[in-house]
Amino acid sequence: MDTRLSDLSLPGRLAGEGEQITMDELALAARNHGMPLEALHHDLTPHGLHYLLIHFDIPVIDARTWRLTVNGHSGTPLSLSLADLRARPSRTVRVTMECAGNGRASLLPRPISQPWLVEAVGTAEWTGVPLRDVLAEAGLGEVTVDVVFTGADHGVERGIEQDYRRGLPLAEALGDDVLLAYEMNGLPLPPQHGFPLRLVVPGWYGMAHVKWLTSIDVTETPYTGYQNTVAYRVKHASGEEGEPVTRIVPRSLLVPPGFPDFQTRHRIVRPGPVELTGRAWSGLAPLERVEVSTDGGATWSQANLEPPTGHRWAWRRFTAPWHAEPGTYTLAVRATDADGNTQPHREPWNRGGYVNNAVHRVPVTCLA
Amino acid sequence: MDTRLSDLSLPGRLAGEGEQITMDELALAARNHGMPLEALHHDLTPHGLHYLLIHFDIPVIDARTWRLTVNGHSGTPLSLSLADLRARPSRTVRVTMECAGNGRASLLPRPISQPWLVEAVGTAEWTGVPLRDVLAEAGLGEVTVDVVFTGADHGVERGIEQDYRRGLPLAEALGDDVLLAYEMNGLPLPPQHGFPLRLVVPGWYGMAHVKWLTSIDVTETPYTGYQNTVAYRVKHASGEEGEPVTRIVPRSLLVPPGFPDFQTRHRIVRPGPVELTGRAWSGLAPLERVEVSTDGGATWSQANLEPPTGHRWAWRRFTAPWHAEPGTYTLAVRATDADGNTQPHREPWNRGGYVNNAVHRVPVTCLA
Repeated sequence: MDTRLSDLSLPGRLAGEGEQITMDELALAARNHGMPLEALHHDLTPHGLHYLLIHFDIPVIDARTWRLTVNGHSGTPLSLSLADLRARPSRTVRVTMECAGNGRASLLPRPISQPWLVEAVGTAEWTGVPLRDVLAEAGLGEVTVDVVFTGADHGVERGIEQDYRRGLPLAEALGDDVLLAYEMNGLPLPPQHGFPLRLVVPGWYGMAHVKWLTSIDVTETPYTGYQNTVAYRVKHASGEEGEPVTRIVPRSLLVPPGFPDFQTRHRIVRPGPVELTGRAWSGLAPLERVEVSTDGGATWSQANLEPPTGHRWAWRRFTAPWHAEPGTYTLAVRATDADGNTQPHREPWNRGGYVNNAVHRVPVTCLA
Repeated sequence: MDTRLSDLSLPGRLAGEGEQITMDELALAARNHGMPLEALHHDLTPHGLHYLLIHFDIPVIDARTWRLTVNGHSGTPLSLSLADLRARPSRTVRVTMECAGNGRASLLPRPISQPWLVEAVGTAEWTGVPLRDVLAEAGLGEVTVDVVFTGADHGVERGIEQDYRRGLPLAEALGDDVLLAYEMNGLPLPPQHGFPLRLVVPGWYGMAHVKWLTSIDVTETPYTGYQNTVAYRVKHASGEEGEPVTRIVPRSLLVPPGFPDFQTRHRIVRPGPVELTGRAWSGLAPLERVEVSTDGGATWSQANLEPPTGHRWAWRRFTAPWHAEPGTYTLAVRATDADGNTQPHREPWNRGGYVNNAVHRVPVTCLA
């Protein structure tokens, strides 16, 4: 049977020279939603505009019979209903979440997978139970290395049949703001965001935030499943072990100014003052500055970065005045965090197309 | 200035032979959401999974200052606030909405535009004020031919700068279920679905349901704006006048059974009983039957079409038992309505890629 599965599910590949977007990539783009960039106007991404990346299918789960199983070291697994979880002390955290593959479609050569441009992002308030409270009850012992989260979504990826499953290092799992979340922006999770329960690991790329949780297991050795050791690793050749993808590196995006052409999405502005605005974030360290450019990154000027809002894991708004005069421009923006992490001018390439935080560029024409 | 706009905004074109999906098409696919087909499990499409097609940008509108202007024949234009509209008698209608370009990306040659596969659909309950009540108050006179709806979204399309604007024949505008809607599934419209107010014309393709309404005008001559006379017409050559796109022709879609491969979305099932299920709809006449095929349409058998639910404009669920045995299959489904309208085996081609309701095919492998 393995042979048959591997006939249907091929290894990853890179697009050939000049190869445009394939129908497989289009089918992924049609179901995995990006956030239209004008939604950067909102502090909290409106319902339905937050990005979505779903490896397999959205499961249909009956919350009345659903249980979360937690296998710790206390001897008896926990079996928690949604009501059990809702009865516990809760916490709400505002989180900017981004797909590790954001920007993949701009790489050369292009890894064939979900073809994100730059819109795989969103910010939401997640409410749930701190994970460490549940782990403490399940018993951690003294030997736990990783905590493994299993979702209900099932499929095949690169020949491996699996439930979506990820391990998280124990030290990360014990973070103050790591949640087993059952609400998004004050409403029960929608099916596509993990109903009835998902993991939220603020500051990490989206692959860590396992949706549709069914079980949590503590392990005494590092977890070696597909989504940790094959996928979501920065590799430069297919045989490499690579480095794991973890926290979100700094990124900033502009609200494209003016108005678009329907087909090309090219932006048009009129002469006069234009307020450039957008959002910036980093999962590594607090933001330090945002700079904008109107000449494609040849020269930069500092944007007005709004002060911290108390939401450490949420994006921050910036503005910069621009006086548009007739001509063509490439606007650009880059963010730098307090650890000195910044955005490169060129796309950093790797085989999976992960962690590409090249500066955002927006071509604009100012018509006389 | 016209010359400059037309330099930036080119005429429509067809993809060349063998031309894969372009980056322009990908950028449209990344922002215009499709409904993942497993969401066909739900009577009402969950928030955030309903399809979206936005010609320009999602406008940012302050509901406190927003007004709807209605220019009728009574002499004085109406100026209505959201509170004014909410104070009027309301009506709730369940509507399956579909984009007129659904299926476009499968056409040969492919019209270059939003590259839908089959997922540009969704069902919601819309609540609002019957349009005819507002038109009666604004005064229709005896000479009105069309009612023209203007949205706040602004951009350029094929060289024409415009607010999105559509005319609707008066007889259609007076229909029982045509609404000025301010709620979707019991919540205020989300920004991307037309906040604070949109038109809903049950049974018509999505282009008629103008979002972000700012004004309504009655006209004594047929409306000849871009979105009625250039776009949304079935033409076989670019110079033709063509026929207007109006009501939704019959369509049915299967929930893809089993589980998918991540990359190809190819479906895998195990031997044994599989319940095939999905949804079917027609904006022309009530549905009469749904048929399924497991041999790509060579032979058909009748599905169990669930009885009407009282929601004339909403899709209906169907089921059909299948006993899967090892092998490869192409599942197919087709709907037929009471007027005898049905789904063709091959994609009906036209230059805009509209009204393509070819039978839905789902390749499946049953592994031993």
